[in-house]
Amino acid sequence: MNRTKILNHIAIFILLLGSTISLAKEEKPAALWRFSRGSAAWEQDYEARLKNMLSPQKIKEHLQWLTSEPHLAGSERTRAIAEYLYKNLEEYGFQTKITCYEGFLSAPVSVSAELVEPFQETIPTLEDRIEGDPFTEKVAEHPGWVLFSPSGEARGHVVYANFGSEKDLRYLEDSGINLKGKILLMRYFKTSDGIKIRNAERFGAAGVVLYADPQEDGFLYGDVYPTGNWRPPGSIMRRSLIFDYLPYTGDPLSPGWASVKGAKRLKIKEVAMPQIPVLSISYRSAQHILNLMKGPTAPYAWQGSLGLTYKLGPGPAKLHIKTKMDNRDRIMFNVIGRLEGSEQPDEWIIIGNHHDAIIYGAGDPSSGTASLLELARALGILAEKGFRPKRTIIICFWDAEEMFLGGSTEWVEEHSPELLEKAVAYINMDSAVFNTERPLSVSSHPGLHKLFRSVARDIDDPKTKHSLFEVWRDLQNQYRQVPSVDGWGIFFDPEKELSQPYIFEIPADDAAPFYYLLALPSSDMYYGADYGMYHSIYDNFHWMKTIGDPTFEYHVLMSKLQGITALRLANADLLPIDFVEEAHFWKKAYLDMEKVAKNKGHSPPRLDEAFHLLNLWEKEAADWENESDELLRNESRVKEASAEFMEINRIIRKGFTDFLRAQGQMSLSWSRNLFAGKSFDFEGISGNTLPGIRFALDKGELEKANEEANVYISALRRRVERLISLRQKIRKNDR
Amino acid sequence: MNRTKILNHIAIFILLLGSTISLAKEEKPAALWRFSRGSAAWEQDYEARLKNMLSPQKIKEHLQWLTSEPHLAGSERTRAIAEYLYKNLEEYGFQTKITCYEGFLSAPVSVSAELVEPFQETIPTLEDRIEGDPFTEKVAEHPGWVLFSPSGEARGHVVYANFGSEKDLRYLEDSGINLKGKILLMRYFKTSDGIKIRNAERFGAAGVVLYADPQEDGFLYGDVYPTGNWRPPGSIMRRSLIFDYLPYTGDPLSPGWASVKGAKRLKIKEVAMPQIPVLSISYRSAQHILNLMKGPTAPYAWQGSLGLTYKLGPGPAKLHIKTKMDNRDRIMFNVIGRLEGSEQPDEWIIIGNHHDAIIYGAGDPSSGTASLLELARALGILAEKGFRPKRTIIICFWDAEEMFLGGSTEWVEEHSPELLEKAVAYINMDSAVFNTERPLSVSSHPGLHKLFRSVARDIDDPKTKHSLFEVWRDLQNQYRQVPSVDGWGIFFDPEKELSQPYIFEIPADDAAPFYYLLALPSSDMYYGADYGMYHSIYDNFHWMKTIGDPTFEYHVLMSKLQGITALRLANADLLPIDFVEEAHFWKKAYLDMEKVAKNKGHSPPRLDEAFHLLNLWEKEAADWENESDELLRNESRVKEASAEFMEINRIIRKGFTDFLRAQGQMSLSWSRNLFAGKSFDFEGISGNTLPGIRFALDKGELEKANEEANVYISALRRRVERLISLRQKIRKNDR
Repeated sequence: MNRTKILNHIAIFILLLGSTISLAKEEKPAALWRFSRGSAAWEQDYEARLKNMLSPQKIKEHLQWLTSEPHLAGSERTRAIAEYLYKNLEEYGFQTKITCYEGFLSAPVSVSAELVEPFQETIPTLEDRIEGDPFTEKVAEHPGWVLFSPSGEARGHVVYANFGSEKDLRYLEDSGINLKGKILLMRYFKTSDGIKIRNAERFGAAGVVLYADPQEDGFLYGDVYPTGNWRPPGSIMRRSLIFDYLPYTGDPLSPGWASVKGAKRLKIKEVAMPQIPVLSISYRSAQHILNLMKGPTAPYAWQGSLGLTYKLGPGPAKLHIKTKMDNRDRIMFNVIGRLEGSEQPDEWIIIGNHHDAIIYGAGDPSSGTASLLELARALGILAEKGFRPKRTIIICFWDAEEMFLGGSTEWVEEHSPELLEKAVAYINMDSAVFNTERPLSVSSHPGLHKLFRSVARDIDDPKTKHSLFEVWRDLQNQYRQVPSVDGWGIFFDPEKELSQPYIFEIPADDAAPFYYLLALPSSDMYYGADYGMYHSIYDNFHWMKTIGDPTFEYHVLMSKLQGITALRLANADLLPIDFVEEAHFWKKAYLDMEKVAKNKGHSPPRLDEAFHLLNLWEKEAADWENESDELLRNESRVKEASAEFMEINRIIRKGFTDFLRAQGQMSLSWSRNLFAGKSFDFEGISGNTLPGIRFALDKGELEKANEEANVYISALRRRVERLISLRQKIRKNDR
Repeated sequence: MNRTKILNHIAIFILLLGSTISLAKEEKPAALWRFSRGSAAWEQDYEARLKNMLSPQKIKEHLQWLTSEPHLAGSERTRAIAEYLYKNLEEYGFQTKITCYEGFLSAPVSVSAELVEPFQETIPTLEDRIEGDPFTEKVAEHPGWVLFSPSGEARGHVVYANFGSEKDLRYLEDSGINLKGKILLMRYFKTSDGIKIRNAERFGAAGVVLYADPQEDGFLYGDVYPTGNWRPPGSIMRRSLIFDYLPYTGDPLSPGWASVKGAKRLKIKEVAMPQIPVLSISYRSAQHILNLMKGPTAPYAWQGSLGLTYKLGPGPAKLHIKTKMDNRDRIMFNVIGRLEGSEQPDEWIIIGNHHDAIIYGAGDPSSGTASLLELARALGILAEKGFRPKRTIIICFWDAEEMFLGGSTEWVEEHSPELLEKAVAYINMDSAVFNTERPLSVSSHPGLHKLFRSVARDIDDPKTKHSLFEVWRDLQNQYRQVPSVDGWGIFFDPEKELSQPYIFEIPADDAAPFYYLLALPSSDMYYGADYGMYHSIYDNFHWMKTIGDPTFEYHVLMSKLQGITALRLANADLLPIDFVEEAHFWKKAYLDMEKVAKNKGHSPPRLDEAFHLLNLWEKEAADWENESDELLRNESRVKEASAEFMEINRIIRKGFTDFLRAQGQMSLSWSRNLFAGKSFDFEGISGNTLPGIRFALDKGELEKANEEANVYISALRRRVERLISLRQKIRKNDR
């Protein structure tokens, strides 16, 4: 026995002691939500061991390897990364495989921009080299491309088009500025990129130049890289245009089915892809162009932070832009590792991250890849030592997320019947760490919120040693009036202090296909939504080790969060899905929908019935919560209940389909989840709630809204009946 | 008879025809609110004649004369202006006098600012010369002084202190930045200047440097002068520090009484005056200093629009500032002209403007002075021709408004018993025109809102020929999401379209003493709150004739608005004071107060009783409105009712004292109006509603809050009884 081991044992002892003391204080007989006392003790031991095993150094080493080369989906390097992930998962004891899909992927060749009026000048499309950052020596290889721009060129007077929303472009037209043949200079954010480009095309623009204004992303928030964590004037942000340009995610040529080898695929000409050239420039270059603009002063809300009066144009600045792209079929590689559950192998807890990056991707996504790999190592070793999850844990590393959520969408499409049968939840970590000064960001199906909050109470913040729960909430309060690139600030009342962390009710990134297609409890996470390196060459290992997370302790924190959340799901006696918070968010969604509809002069159909059912749901959920707590506290009953637990858990899982629609939703998007969906008209970063009724009312299609209201009433009724049958299960146990 | 006269007659005919048609459409037998049919016809004739007489050319000539020299209160020039006003009013047939008061006035001698670290450099305290603007040749005579700075000097490292609110300075201290001995660089706006300086002193600062950031006032809003109407980089804004530094307005040495010749006055050392030197610089100079700053990044909300990351400091920039002032007793000259009423000479309609200016004051206030002079001319001529107001109209030109609302406060203090006996309303026009692109701004006692809206329906907008009512509302809708220097945007929901113009419920400028001291129906107005010339050397005649209002038609519009409002008040059969809107704003005030109190965990005492009384008030007011309308429609009753009308009007006027407190309010400010008051803690541009209860709850003084709630309940009861007695008057007439 060596010194380290002794210390570890003491640490575990103190930790368990601490738990006992806190139990006594809180007077809760069951220490962990949805665990019986016996299971909880074992779980806490398991978690303490897991926490102790996670190593910042190992994460750092993974990250250094993963980010040593650019690894855009479709590049040779992603194959090497998939092999690295495979090899490691195998070594950790996971049953591992690489699953491949075909995908129509985008790759840049070259871009250029030239000012042709009022004078001739090259507009830089390369980022600045930064002394001391070796990755920036390669700036010439990574000009300001945008994924899924076609190859092409355009020449036209510049019009400043704000965020490129439909409202923005209509305002320009209404101000007498014809957009036909113009080059639209748009700032990133707010309106999703696909919609910006669709709008530009609809209004006849010849091309689009995108840039991130410091108002959203730059010096307004703090020191810029390499001094600080914010976007420097010479940084260029890149994105994929296909999000919300197409009404589905995944391979554009296999909408709704998996593009496995041999599967049918559309021809590219059958799909409406972006038609006009698009490229991206730095805000320094945008400032230079905007300084040359004349015409009407842009509205106040359009003024950015470049220290000048933004004018609409057109011109006199005139640009000539050229894009050369190599968009074609390539292979996507997912790496899937399985750690078989000891008791319920057919109940799956799926956790994931994507491994493809825009360039080096140290933050996005490789910080997450490295942290999840280290979590896999710890889980593997613990399983060998006898700590094996009761349910199966499946770890997924997705490819082509940056393109169109490629790997995750295709995999979900391939496995949907099995997933509906077996999946308990999908816990995504798109990236681990962006900014340790800003709050943790979690977006999640409301049924998982309680779980996240309870896990966060049991994890320490590396800096303050307070709980993650407290630091998360306190940072959200501290930054609640600061607009966020991620948009999270818009979700709650800036005037009100939060008493617990706010979690967004619609999960993002690779959780989306699980959520929209299958309505499974899904979530996404990353630490510190806002950072200025996003999708630039500066998002590299040098940045991470000097600015991002030099100690790698926040990477470890995120491993713990994803890992312990998965373990609670894997090991709880009763599945930790919370129907109370779900009901709360459904009610909120109905109230929001009602408000929006009434502002437009509509009155949503069958509203009273819906609220009646929502009240029933709330009541049933609260009763079930109390009764299941009581059941788990009663040790003699717990001993005899294991078959009943299985049946209860089966009913809970079956409940995931309560809000699943057979077909995709109203042809507006491919969503089948009644709670959330997207519309082409929607100009936000995430979806919208109650899409069926809402979109029908938005369009004034009142008959359709009636039909949809019926669909929703049936679903709410299913949910209430589900809860009644759950409570009956427990009462039966009582006898 | 000449051609012009014929055209005028045709115009009047068409106008009257128009009124008749619109009457028929609206099916309102009485064309003018609170007028009988007979009185209305005469009134409309009167108003049409008035409108026709007002001359843009004459206003322009007045303005040119008034603004040919700087005319700060206390300067030799203000005496000349008072004589000019006197001479004109006399000539127009007004019984005119100049009333003098002593006042402790501030005057600049010189100011300077020098950067001493990290390098030696002079910080400019003069504004830029502008080619073609002859007034700017005198920039050297008008450095960046601030009124009521003491003479002094200070040397210290710079700390960026945002708006200088208590919260801001506490944040700095909490961030470990000791403010003792520092020079605080603060932006103007939001927190009132007196409070900024009080705060700086309380936190031990050595001096304050003020500047207007383009985020509030500059290129963010449009082209800067001389191209456009927004503050150029080299412009300096000046202010008086004494507002809200002292808890009263008027001469600092005679708080609460008039400083007429021979009156007792305090010694200056008995009054707590500003102690630290304060000066003002341009935003170009502020940018230069801010670029040199280090230390923590300022919070997001503190970031302005100067195209840099605002850092808190302290330093490394270090400043040496010097101020030399000549603050001492001088004479203030009010000019008061009286046009005796033909029927009720002891009911007074008071209208006013101030004549002192920061420098040339073409917009603020001389545009108002010139417009009111022209109104006086028209009223005088019409009176000679037999159109004499039924009630007395008193025109007042105040001195020393820019210092501390000097002339108006002293006059109100001198005449308060008579005013409480005779005044019907005070209609102020601080300035006529700032910006013809932005909406009219009216702040007013709610009892006058209906009158303003009805007058605005009968005045045409010069550009569109739509009614002022429509243009006012439409521009408010257009700019409702644009922050305003004047703060008006904050008063209504930016998400909601207004169906009628929004009027702020607390009157500003020289209306304040009438409102706060006597609770008289009072109001203030100016066209286009926002312009970048405010209190700079660029607010001069050259600006007005090239940018501000080149045709002077908006000056005429404002003459009409002030004049017709006064005539309706002077000539209505029943005084046009609206108890319905008053009740609405009182209810709003109670709801606001309740919300704020509940957020702080307090529950306001006697709330149910208050709402019960407010409901009664609303009901009685609505009934009285209907019954008085009916009375005025009934021509046979009108003929016999004139003595009853007098009695009703007496009751209405008596009602002004329903919300008047015997003593000043809670020692927080000198306000005696229960509806509105100011607190030293308040950081806004106007006062706050229900100050008695609100401030007690704010401070957690619950016993005091109870006492105050009793005071308010009694007042609400008085108001309900007043309305009951009004309705009884009418019913008596019925018999």
